[in-house]
Amino acid sequence: MTLDALPSLLLRTRAHSLALAAPLSDEDAQLQSMPDASPAKWHLAHTTWFFETLVLVPHLPGYRVFDERWPRLFNSYYESLGPRHARPQRGLLSRPSLAEVKAYRQHVDAALAMLLPQADDAARHLIELGCHHEQQHQELLLTDILHAFSCNPLLPAYDASAPASISPPEQTWLQHPGGIVDIGHAGHGFAFDNESPRHPTLLAPFEISSRLVTCGEYADFIAAGGYQEPLLWLSDGWAAVQAQGWQRPLYWLEDGRVFGLHGAQAMDAQAPVTQLSFYEACAFAEWAGARLPTEFEWEAASGLPGFAQAADQAWQWTRSSYAPYPGFKPAAGAVGEYNGKFMVGQQVLRGGSGATPPGHARPSYRNFFPPAARWQFSGVRLAR
Amino acid sequence: MTLDALPSLLLRTRAHSLALAAPLSDEDAQLQSMPDASPAKWHLAHTTWFFETLVLVPHLPGYRVFDERWPRLFNSYYESLGPRHARPQRGLLSRPSLAEVKAYRQHVDAALAMLLPQADDAARHLIELGCHHEQQHQELLLTDILHAFSCNPLLPAYDASAPASISPPEQTWLQHPGGIVDIGHAGHGFAFDNESPRHPTLLAPFEISSRLVTCGEYADFIAAGGYQEPLLWLSDGWAAVQAQGWQRPLYWLEDGRVFGLHGAQAMDAQAPVTQLSFYEACAFAEWAGARLPTEFEWEAASGLPGFAQAADQAWQWTRSSYAPYPGFKPAAGAVGEYNGKFMVGQQVLRGGSGATPPGHARPSYRNFFPPAARWQFSGVRLAR
Amino acid sequence: MTLDALPSLLLRTRAHSLALAAPLSDEDAQLQSMPDASPAKWHLAHTTWFFETLVLVPHLPGYRVFDERWPRLFNSYYESLGPRHARPQRGLLSRPSLAEVKAYRQHVDAALAMLLPQADDAARHLIELGCHHEQQHQELLLTDILHAFSCNPLLPAYDASAPASISPPEQTWLQHPGGIVDIGHAGHGFAFDNESPRHPTLLAPFEISSRLVTCGEYADFIAAGGYQEPLLWLSDGWAAVQAQGWQRPLYWLEDGRVFGLHGAQAMDAQAPVTQLSFYEACAFAEWAGARLPTEFEWEAASGLPGFAQAADQAWQWTRSSYAPYPGFKPAAGAVGEYNGKFMVGQQVLRGGSGATPPGHARPSYRNFFPPAARWQFSGVRLAR
Amino acid sequence: MTLDALPSLLLRTRAHSLALAAPLSDEDAQLQSMPDASPAKWHLAHTTWFFETLVLVPHLPGYRVFDERWPRLFNSYYESLGPRHARPQRGLLSRPSLAEVKAYRQHVDAALAMLLPQADDAARHLIELGCHHEQQHQELLLTDILHAFSCNPLLPAYDASAPASISPPEQTWLQHPGGIVDIGHAGHGFAFDNESPRHPTLLAPFEISSRLVTCGEYADFIAAGGYQEPLLWLSDGWAAVQAQGWQRPLYWLEDGRVFGLHGAQAMDAQAPVTQLSFYEACAFAEWAGARLPTEFEWEAASGLPGFAQAADQAWQWTRSSYAPYPGFKPAAGAVGEYNGKFMVGQQVLRGGSGATPPGHARPSYRNFFPPAARWQFSGVRLAR
Ligand SMILES: [Fe+3]
Ligand SMILES: [Fe+3]
Ligand SMILES: [Fe+3]
Ligand SMILES: [Fe+3]
Repeated sequence: MTLDALPSLLLRTRAHSLALAAPLSDEDAQLQSMPDASPAKWHLAHTTWFFETLVLVPHLPGYRVFDERWPRLFNSYYESLGPRHARPQRGLLSRPSLAEVKAYRQHVDAALAMLLPQADDAARHLIELGCHHEQQHQELLLTDILHAFSCNPLLPAYDASAPASISPPEQTWLQHPGGIVDIGHAGHGFAFDNESPRHPTLLAPFEISSRLVTCGEYADFIAAGGYQEPLLWLSDGWAAVQAQGWQRPLYWLEDGRVFGLHGAQAMDAQAPVTQLSFYEACAFAEWAGARLPTEFEWEAASGLPGFAQAADQAWQWTRSSYAPYPGFKPAAGAVGEYNGKFMVGQQVLRGGSGATPPGHARPSYRNFFPPAARWQFSGVRLAR
Repeated sequence: MTLDALPSLLLRTRAHSLALAAPLSDEDAQLQSMPDASPAKWHLAHTTWFFETLVLVPHLPGYRVFDERWPRLFNSYYESLGPRHARPQRGLLSRPSLAEVKAYRQHVDAALAMLLPQADDAARHLIELGCHHEQQHQELLLTDILHAFSCNPLLPAYDASAPASISPPEQTWLQHPGGIVDIGHAGHGFAFDNESPRHPTLLAPFEISSRLVTCGEYADFIAAGGYQEPLLWLSDGWAAVQAQGWQRPLYWLEDGRVFGLHGAQAMDAQAPVTQLSFYEACAFAEWAGARLPTEFEWEAASGLPGFAQAADQAWQWTRSSYAPYPGFKPAAGAVGEYNGKFMVGQQVLRGGSGATPPGHARPSYRNFFPPAARWQFSGVRLAR
Repeated sequence: MTLDALPSLLLRTRAHSLALAAPLSDEDAQLQSMPDASPAKWHLAHTTWFFETLVLVPHLPGYRVFDERWPRLFNSYYESLGPRHARPQRGLLSRPSLAEVKAYRQHVDAALAMLLPQADDAARHLIELGCHHEQQHQELLLTDILHAFSCNPLLPAYDASAPASISPPEQTWLQHPGGIVDIGHAGHGFAFDNESPRHPTLLAPFEISSRLVTCGEYADFIAAGGYQEPLLWLSDGWAAVQAQGWQRPLYWLEDGRVFGLHGAQAMDAQAPVTQLSFYEACAFAEWAGARLPTEFEWEAASGLPGFAQAADQAWQWTRSSYAPYPGFKPAAGAVGEYNGKFMVGQQVLRGGSGATPPGHARPSYRNFFPPAARWQFSGVRLAR
Repeated sequence: MTLDALPSLLLRTRAHSLALAAPLSDEDAQLQSMPDASPAKWHLAHTTWFFETLVLVPHLPGYRVFDERWPRLFNSYYESLGPRHARPQRGLLSRPSLAEVKAYRQHVDAALAMLLPQADDAARHLIELGCHHEQQHQELLLTDILHAFSCNPLLPAYDASAPASISPPEQTWLQHPGGIVDIGHAGHGFAFDNESPRHPTLLAPFEISSRLVTCGEYADFIAAGGYQEPLLWLSDGWAAVQAQGWQRPLYWLEDGRVFGLHGAQAMDAQAPVTQLSFYEACAFAEWAGARLPTEFEWEAASGLPGFAQAADQAWQWTRSSYAPYPGFKPAAGAVGEYNGKFMVGQQVLRGGSGATPPGHARPSYRNFFPPAARWQFSGVRLAR
C-alpha cells in the first residue's frame, strides 16, 4: 500500500465504525441476541484491541495499554493471545461503557497516528490487516444489531429512512467455457491469507445466472410447498427445518412484511432474497432445477459481461466448503489464527452485500459461515 | 390501610425503586445474566405495568395506556393478562430505553395520584398490593444486578462504599416447647394470600439457633471437605455439586474474597454466609449435626427472646416445601396467579435480608425459591 | 418377624421377581427406555446385589462374591458402596446375560438359605429389608417394561390375557372431623425408615372421596379443554404441558385406546385413571372444584368406612412434598442412603396399585416421585 | 454384472451378515449405544427391508410383505418410503426378536431366489445395489457393536481370538507429479452414484506417505502434549477436545491398553492408529509438519508403487468435504436419497478397513462421516 493510502484507509475505516454505531443508544450497543452475534460495543472495542495488541504493543515503543484488564474482554478467539471472556457472555459487559470504549478508540487512534510515520513494513502490513479486519466487523455489527432488533417485539428500525427500491437486471444464463482458470488473489493489493496461493483449477463448462434470486421467486418456492417437501432438502437442512420450525426466511414476518435495517417493510418482490441459510439456498436451487455454483465457478464467472449484483446486494452461498487452497500456509504468530483454523464445517460465500464496506470485497474474497447460518446478508445465485 | 398511609407507602415505594436504579448506567440497567434474573429496567417497567394493568385500567375512568405495545413486554407470568415476551429475552429489550421507562413511571404515578383520592376499597387494596409487589422486585433488582455484575470479569461494585462490618450475637440454642401454635398472618395489616388462612399447627419441642451461620463457620465446612463428601448432601444436591462443579458459595472467589454489592471484599468471618442454595444449607446442617427448621418452627420461634438476625441479614432456608395452607384459596382474577401456581418444587425461606425494603417482611412472610437457587440473599439458621 | 415368616417371605419374594420376568424375552429384559427406568434384568440383578452386599458379605462368613466386577454394575445409588455404572446406560449391559443374572440369583439364594438359620437379629432385619426392597423393584420392573413397550410401535402386551373390568364403588364424600391424629408407622411389623417416627399431627376437618377418579371423569376434563387452559395448572405443570405437548395421559393413544400391561385396549370409563403426573392430578382437581389430600389426611382417612380402592388400583398423589418426619434419623451406614437423601423435589403418593406386590403396602407407606413423573401406576383421589 | 456373479454375490453377502452376527447374543444384537449407531439386529432387518421394499415389492409379482408393520421400523432415512421409527430409539425394539428378524431374512432370501432367474436389468441392478448396501451395513454392524461393548465396564470381546500383529511397511514419501488426472468411477463394475461422473481434476505435485500413521507415532503426539495445545487444532476440533475432555483416541484406555474387536489388548505400536476423528487426524498432521491429502490426491496416488495399507487397515480421512462431483445427478426415486442428501458437513474418507467386507471398496470409493466421528475404523495417511 502506498505511503499515502494507508493513513487514509485507517482514518476512513475507524470513522466508519463510529458512524455505523451512531444510530445506536448505549443500550442498543450492548445487545447480544445469540452466542454467534456480538454487541456493537464489543465490535468497536475488539477491533481496537486488535490494533493495540498486534500493532501498537509490538511496534510502538513506549505504548501504554489503555487498560490491562481489557484484553481478556476483547480478545475474540486468539488462543496465542491469552484467556478470553466467554463469547456467549459478551452482552453482559455493561462495563466498560460505550463512552469508555470510545475513549479507548481515541487512545489507540492517537497512538496509531504516532506510529504511522515511523512504521516499518511489518507494522504497515499489520495496520492494513487491522483495517480490513475492522471492515469485516463493520458488516457483522450490522448483521448482529439487525438480529438483536429482530428479537424485540417493537421491531426497531436501525435506519428509519425508506429503503431504496431495486430494479434487478433481467435474468439470463451466462455461459462459461470451463477449462483451466487461475483462482485466488493476484496482484499487489491487500488480500487475506485464505485467498492464497493463487493456483490453477480445472472447470467443466457451466452456466451461471446474471443476477440473484429475488424475493418474488423465493415466495413462489414457499407457495409451492418448498418448506414441506423433504426431498428438496439436504438431510441436515431438513432436520433444521423440522427442529426449528422454519417456514420462511428468518426475517420474513408472518404478516407478509420483511424485517431489515429499515424496519419492517412490505416485501419487495424484485429485491434479492437475503438472510437465507445454505440449506435454504440449496433447497431453492433444487426446486428451481438448478444448483449453486462452486466458489471456483463463481470467481471464474465474476468477470463475465452481464454478471450483475456481484458484490452490492448479498453474499452468495457456494457449493464449496471452506478449505485451504493447495499450498496454503497460515502466517506465523497470532495472525495465523485469523482464518486457517476455521476451515472445516463451513460453506464459502462469494461476492459482497449492501452492508459490506466500500472497497472491502474483491472477486477472490472468501467469506464463510456454517450452513445453518441465517442472519447474514446471504442470498442465492444459481448455476447449472 | 389508613387513608393517610397509602399515599405515603406508594410514594415511598415508587421513589425507592428509582433510588435503587440510580447507581446504574443505561447499560447496567439492561443486563440479564440468566433466564431466572431480569434487567433492572425491566423491574422498573414491570412494577409499573402491574399498577397500570391491575389498578388504573379497571379503576381510573379515562385512563390512557402509556403504550399499547408495552404490556406484552412487561407482563411477567400472568396467563390471564395476555401474551408475554419470553422471559429469557428480557435483556434484549434495548427499546424502550431507560429514559422511556422512567417516563412510563411518571405517567403511571401521575394517574395513581389522580386515582388515590377517589379510590374505593378494591382499588386501594390493589394499590397496596402493587406496592408490596414492587418491594419484592426491589430486592430482586439487587439480586439480579449483583448476579449480572458477577459475570463481568471487572467485578463492578454496585455500591463503592465500604461494607459495614458485622458483630454477630453469640450463638445459643433457643428452646421452644412445641405444642399447638397459630401459623399465618394475623391482624389487619397487609399480607400476601399465601400467608393465609391462619391456622393451628402442632409442633414437637425443638431448639433453634439465636443467629445465622457465619462465613467463618461455612469456611470450616469447606475446609473439612464438605463439597467432596456425598453423604452430607441430598441426592439432587450432590448431582448439582457434580454437574456444576460447586466448590464454594456462588460469590466466594477463588482468591478468598467474596463478591457482593460492595464489590469484591475480604471475607468477613463474622458475617452471615449468604447466596447459598437450599442444597448447600442442608449439607452444612448435616455436617454441623443439626438440621434446618420447618417454616412453622421458624415462625413460632421468631418471637423468642434472643432470636437475632431475624430479617436484616439473609433469608433463611427452611425444611418446608412451598405448599398451600389448609383452606388456601387464591384470589379471583389475575391476582390469583400471584402466588398459588408456584406451590410446587420450591422451598420456603423465612425472615428477610439486607436487601429487603424496610417494612416489607413480617414473621408470617413466605419467600420461596427452587432448592438450587444460589443468587439470593439466602442463608442458614440451624435447628435441632 | 417371626422365625417362620422370614424364610417364607424371602422365598416368595425371590420367586415373584422371576415370575414377573417370565413373560419377557432376553431382549425385553434389557430394555431401558429412559434414564429414570431400568431394564428388567437390571432389577433382577440389583435386588440380588443388595442381598449380596448388605447381607451376605458382612454376615455370612466365607461368602464368595459371585463376580467381583458386578457390584459396580448393579449398585444403584449408594455412594458409600463404591462407584457405579451410569444410570442412563443400564440398558447397554448386554453382558452379563439374563441367564448369568439368573445364575447370580441362585448363587445368592443358596447363600441366603445357608445364612438364614444362623442369622442374628441384624442380619434378619437386613434380609427383611432386602425383601421389601425387592418388592419395590417388582413394581418398578412392571412400570419400566410398560414404558419400554410403549416406545415400540408394535405395542407389545406384557400380558396377553384380557384385562379385568372394574366396577367402581359409588363416589361419596367421606367426612373426617380433623383433630390430632397420629401419623407414621405403628406396631412391630416392617416399615421403611421414612415412615418414622410416628408423631401427632393436627388436621382441620376435611372430606375425601370414597374412590379414585375414573377414566371417564378424566375424559370429561380433556373434553372440557383441560389441557388448553393454563389457569387450571401449576406453573411448572403448564410449562411441561407446553414443552412436551401433553394432550392426554401418557398411555392414552390418539385412537382412543389406552395402553397397559394387557396391550392397547378400549378405554374403560369405569376404571381409575392412571399414569398421571402430579401436575395433571392437580389440574384435574382444580377443574373439579376440589384438591388433593395431604399425605396426613390420606393416612388419617384411610381407615374410614367406605374408603375404597385404597391400595389395589393406583397410587394416589398427595399435596405433600416428601420430607422427613419430625425427629427422622436415617439409619447408620449404607442403608441410611435408602430414603433420606431423596427428601426434596418429590411428592408423596399413598396407597398402592395393581402392580404392588401383595402385602407390600400399608397405610403409613410413603411412595414418592417427582411431580412430572407419568409412567407410574399413579392416580387421583380428591379431597376438599 | 454377469449372470453368474449376481446370485453368488447375493448369497455371499446375505450369509456374511449372519456370520458377523453369530458371535452376538440376542441381547448384544439389540444394543444401541448412541443415536448414530444401530443395533446389529436392526442392521440385519434394515438390509432385508431394503431388498423387500426396493426389489421385491416392485419387481416380484405376488410378493407378500413379511409383516406390514415392519417397514416403519426398518426404514432408515428414506422420506419417500414413508414414516420411520425414530433413529435414537432403534435399541428399544425388543420385538421383533432376533429370531423373527432371521425368519424375515429367510422369507426375503427365498423371494429373491425366486426373482433372480426372471429379473430384468432394473431389478438386477437393484439387487446388486442391495448387496453393496448390505456390505456397508456389515462394517457398521461391527463399528456399532464395538462402540456398544466399549460402554460396558466388562469390556466384552467380540472376537476372543488373539489379534494379528502387524508389521507395517517402512514409511517413505511417494512422489506424485500432479497434472490433470481423472477422478471417479471408471469401467463397468458396480459403483455408488457419488463416485460419478468421472471427471478430470488438476492436481499440483505432492507427496504422500507409503503407509498409515502408527499407534506408536500417535502416542508420541500425545506425549508431546498434542491434546493440550490449541494451536495444533482446528477451532471446532479444539472445542470438541475441551467440551468432551478428549485426551486420547476413543478406544485407548487409561491403563494403556487399546479396546477393539478382540477386547482390551496391549497397545501395538506398529499397528495403524484407528478410531480417530477428523479433528484428531488434522491435529496430528499439523504436529507432524504435514497435512491430510485431498480425496483427489488420494485417488490419484493410490496406484503408485509402494502405496501400502490402502484398504485393509483403516479408512483414511481426507481434507475434502463430501460434495457432489461436477454433473452429479442422484438417481430418480427413493434410491436417489441414498447419497446425495448427505453432501454437506461431512469429510470424505478413502481406502477401506479391516472391517470392510472383501471386494466392497475400490479406489474411487467415497466413505464419509462428520468430522467429530470417532467410532469408525478411521486413521491417517499423511501428505505434504
Ligand atoms: Fe475479529
Ligand atoms: Fe412481578
Ligand atoms: Fe434399589
Ligand atoms: Fe442403509
